[in-house]
Formats: sequence, C-alpha cells, structure tokens
Amino acid sequence: MHIEDLPTPALLIDADAFDRNLATMSAALPGTRLRPHVKAHKCTSIAAAQAAIGHRTFTCATPREVVGMAAAGLGDDLLLANETVDATRLAAMAACEGNVTVAVDSEATLSAAVAAGLRACLIDVNVGLPRCGVAPDRAGHLADLARARGMTVRGVMGYEGHLMMVPGHADRAAQVAASMSLLLRAHADVGGDIVSAGGTGTFDLHEHTGVNEVQAGSYALLDTHYGSLGLPFEQAAFILGTVISVGPEWAVADVGLKALGMDHGNPSVVGGSVWFCSDEHVVFSCETGRTVAVGDRVHVIPAHIDPTMAMHEAAWLVRAGEVLDRWPIDLRLW
Amino acid sequence: MHIEDLPTPALLIDADAFDRNLATMSAALPGTRLRPHVKAHKCTSIAAAQAAIGHRTFTCATPREVVGMAAAGLGDDLLLANETVDATRLAAMAACEGNVTVAVDSEATLSAAVAAGLRACLIDVNVGLPRCGVAPDRAGHLADLARARGMTVRGVMGYEGHLMMVPGHADRAAQVAASMSLLLRAHADVGGDIVSAGGTGTFDLHEHTGVNEVQAGSYALLDTHYGSLGLPFEQAAFILGTVISVGPEWAVADVGLKALGMDHGNPSVVGGSVWFCSDEHVVFSCETGRTVAVGDRVHVIPAHIDPTMAMHEAAWLVRAGEVLDRWPIDLRLW
Repeated sequence: MHIEDLPTPALLIDADAFDRNLATMSAALPGTRLRPHVKAHKCTSIAAAQAAIGHRTFTCATPREVVGMAAAGLGDDLLLANETVDATRLAAMAACEGNVTVAVDSEATLSAAVAAGLRACLIDVNVGLPRCGVAPDRAGHLADLARARGMTVRGVMGYEGHLMMVPGHADRAAQVAASMSLLLRAHADVGGDIVSAGGTGTFDLHEHTGVNEVQAGSYALLDTHYGSLGLPFEQAAFILGTVISVGPEWAVADVGLKALGMDHGNPSVVGGSVWFCSDEHVVFSCETGRTVAVGDRVHVIPAHIDPTMAMHEAAWLVRAGEVLDRWPIDLRLW
Repeated sequence: MHIEDLPTPALLIDADAFDRNLATMSAALPGTRLRPHVKAHKCTSIAAAQAAIGHRTFTCATPREVVGMAAAGLGDDLLLANETVDATRLAAMAACEGNVTVAVDSEATLSAAVAAGLRACLIDVNVGLPRCGVAPDRAGHLADLARARGMTVRGVMGYEGHLMMVPGHADRAAQVAASMSLLLRAHADVGGDIVSAGGTGTFDLHEHTGVNEVQAGSYALLDTHYGSLGLPFEQAAFILGTVISVGPEWAVADVGLKALGMDHGNPSVVGGSVWFCSDEHVVFSCETGRTVAVGDRVHVIPAHIDPTMAMHEAAWLVRAGEVLDRWPIDLRLW
C-alpha cells in the first residue's frame, strides 16, 4: 500500500529516520544505560524495536503502559516512573507477567504499593522540577520505611524536566550536573544499584553525573520542540493530511487539534507556514512558488510527540512512500 | 457507585448542569433552530439527550461522527459541516441509515460527493474566517454545478468562527451581522431552505441575521474559554483527578496533557491555581487556607472541551457525587 491510499489524518513513522534515531541513541547509551520511556510513543511495536537494539529495561508513566508492556513480552524490567495510589491498578501491575518497580515519593504512595503486593521500588527524588519527588534529605528515611515494609529499594530516580530546554549545551550540562548532585546526595542515603534520570534533551549530559540509566523517549520520533535543540536525532513522525479546501492565500488540511498535541504550540507543515489549527483543520500558507490543490497530501510535524501519539489508534511505518506495517498505539489511556 | 471509586483521570458530566444547559439552549433556540454540533462531545448519549429535548438535526465534523450518529438512530438529518474528498468515507456516509447532507466549497469536493452517491449538499461559504468555504460571489455558480450533477442543494452554511470570542455583546453582534450579510448574499444566489451558521459564542446573535439554524455544540458542557464570555451556560464537564504528590508549595494530580485539550492553554483546578501540565500531571497550588493530601480528589476544568472529549473513552454522568451512568465517547477518530 502507498501512503496516498491511507485515510487521513494518518500518523506516519519514517522507518529509516526511526532506525537511525535508535542506532544513534544505542551507540551513545547502549543496553541498560538507556531505559527507554514508553510514554513518548505508547506503542509496543516501537518498544520491541528498542528492545531488539539492546534496551530491555523500560520506563512507563501509567499502569496501563506497564501492564501492556508485560503482556507484550517486554516485561523484563519495567519502571513506573510515576506515583499512584490506585489500588486496582497497583494490583494489576503486581499481578502482571513481568518485573515491576514503582517510584514512590511519600508514605502514602509507598503504603499503596506495599498493600497491592508490589515488591520493588525506586525512591523518586525532587531534583528541582516542581512536580513529584521527595526532598533529597528525606529520601533515605523513605527508603528505610520501604525496606521495613519488605520492599526491595533498587535506588533512586529524579527527573530534571525543567532543564530539558536550557539553551546552550554547556549551560545545560552545568545545570544538569548541579541538579544531579541532589540526586546523588539522596542516593548516598538510599543505596541500591540504580541512579535513573534524564530525558531526550539531556541524554548526552550524564556521562559524569553518576546517573547510570537515562529515561529518554522522544528521541525515537522527535518533534519540533526537541528538534530546535540541535540534537543528533531526526524527525521520524509525521501526521499525513489531505488538503480539503484552498483559499485565496491559504489552504486547509484535515489535521487538527484532535490529531495533534498542542501544549507546545502549533505544528509545522512541510513546505508551508501554519496560520492556526482548529478541531479538524490546520490552516497554512504555502512557501513561495509552491501551490497545493484539493486532494494533495501534506506532512504535518507535531510540536509535542507524546500527547500526539496518544490521539491515534495506530501508526503507519513507511519508507519512500510505501506502507511497511501498521503499528497499533496500544498503550493509550491509564 | 460514588465518584471516589472511579479510576482517574475520569471525565465527569454534572447531570444537573448539563440538563440546565440543554434547557437554556432549547428555550432560546427550540427544535431545528439549533443544529447541535456533535464535534463538541463526540458522544451519542449526549446527542440523544439533545434529541430528547427537541433537536433532531445535527452537525458533524467528521464522517465517523455522521456514520456513528446514524447507527445510533440519530440520523434524521445529519450535516457534515466540513469538506472531504475521501471516497471510502463519503461512500460510508452515502450508505448509512440516515439522511446525510454534506458541505461543499469547491468543484473537487462536490465531485467527490457526487461520485460517492451522496445526494444533498449545502454550499459552504467563507464569511471571514480564513478556513473552508467558497467566496460568497462564487457560491451561486457552485450551487448550479451541484444541481446540474443531480444534487439537492439545501442552502448555505458559513461559520463565523473568528467572531466567537469578540469581547462585548454589542460589538460581537455587529460583527456577526456584517459577516452574515456575506452569507445572505450567497444564499440569494444559491437558494434552498437552510441558512446555517453560528456557534456557542454567537448563539444569541442570530435572531435578525437571516440565519435559521445555529451550529452550537460547546454550550452543553462548556469550558473555561467559553466560560469567560458570560454566556448563560454552566460548566458541566470536569476531569476528576487524584493527588499523587504534595510538594512544599504545590501539589500534583494525575490529569495531564493526554487528558486535556491544551490549545487554549492550561486548564483550571477548582480550589487551586495551575502552574503547568505535563504528560500525566497537573501541578497546582491550593487557594489560601486550603491543603490537599495524597489520595484527595480534585476537579479540573478543561480550557477547550472539544479536543478534551476526544481523549477519553467514556464520560461518567454524576449527580451529588453519585455516578448515574457511563456514556461512551463513541464518535472519536475520523
């Protein structure tokens, strides 16, 4: 099948760019040095490709992702890098065919995990992003509590999400190192083998921070937001649209708010300039010298890949316009 | 079941507020004066409630919405107020158990509809929003072409989406009247019974514009964006979240970018102030004097209801904390 035959909007993955992104990352962070974050794609087919290139430990953001990864045979070492007190979902993770470790950052989240029968945790440490994570000087105490409740404490994690987009590689590196000193201080009190942190924007800044696994996910598909950082990854995900209307100075394609994560702003249109999006439309003008007609196809690049993936039922793996495979986005929802 | 027993994030509909919104709208625009837009909710249960209060003509934005509405027995008079050249989806609409009218704004969209076996159209007229719609002075020509191809031309539509948020009722009314003069000029050339336009932001401005049906949808559930206009509708949709972490000056609930349409900006948290959202989190501070603990529930109000609905599998109809029903969001995708 050719991409011209796909109904639109259609989520496309460029097979060659995707393969190169995976190869680039696994060269930099081989094996367990990378714990790929599945929240960025929510797709067990993509996770299987990451496993095939050597990464068999994974990071998840929701219980649904954990359970789905285990069901797909990718459950060697799954980390829920997020907190939950949902007893039903915690029990489902405890019962699944895989090795599940959960992050905890409070007595409440620890108690919920213990009560559900989970047996391994990381202490989630706040390293500067005002979100989850226990204060570094309280991490050791929480680890002691966890061990007293029968938990294996595998180490620490801390997400420096506030530093992903710091401009300038050197400035970013310095701020990441300072942030990770908080994580190492906590690790000294907590113990365990794992010091987990990072993301696509800081994947290459952890060689000397003491972090021994990086939780990057967006690198596999990229988006315009991370694309602005000059990272060695290529845009591999596109939303294919069809031009449905052509105005005097603009055109309209069928890729709108329900097909695109919009928190990072408007998407880009290849060969055009985006005016605005509405529920089912992107309005754009063409580059000088280019015109489009009703029925033409356009490639739209999302500004934020993670929520974009969650809006689609499946991705189409493509090469040179040919459809190679259909990959269900099978880890959606919670 | 009580809402405390729902897994989160959970999309809630306040049954009383919803009923009042429907009653307020049907008093203002009874029967076919309103053609409710199902893109705002994508839910046949909500559409059935709109039908029960007297509105049995509906507006849709996607073929999937048209086909799903017909399958649910709500196909008396369905308008696809959008353009498509997808032959398969056009054929599915032509084959469905309902009366389907499609908008056309070009020879290409007209030809595709005719080829698929559709037999009724509206001429979609550009009334100032740079999106779909034929230029007003070309509408009569397109109607002539449609009739020559065997189509019944039922009239015109034009969406004044650029005017929904004009501040001040009088200014909004004046600009809507000017915009609708373009639609009436087109209608004089096109003929047919229908002059369709409008939305929630302009629902009460069409008494003297010549428009005889209004395509409002968001009024049923509302959002913070339309809520800022002082319309006589109440917030009826909420995303229920669970607090999963509490920081020194903030708290974190499990309602993030994958549960919220973000194109209109951050959501609101009842009793709090939102700092930012990430994939699975909303970070907020509490109002003075209020505190939250891990496990507490919070109500999040989306900034834009339409894409928010498309992210959830189902809505829970609630009254005074009790769950009355589960309504599948069954018209998602395209």
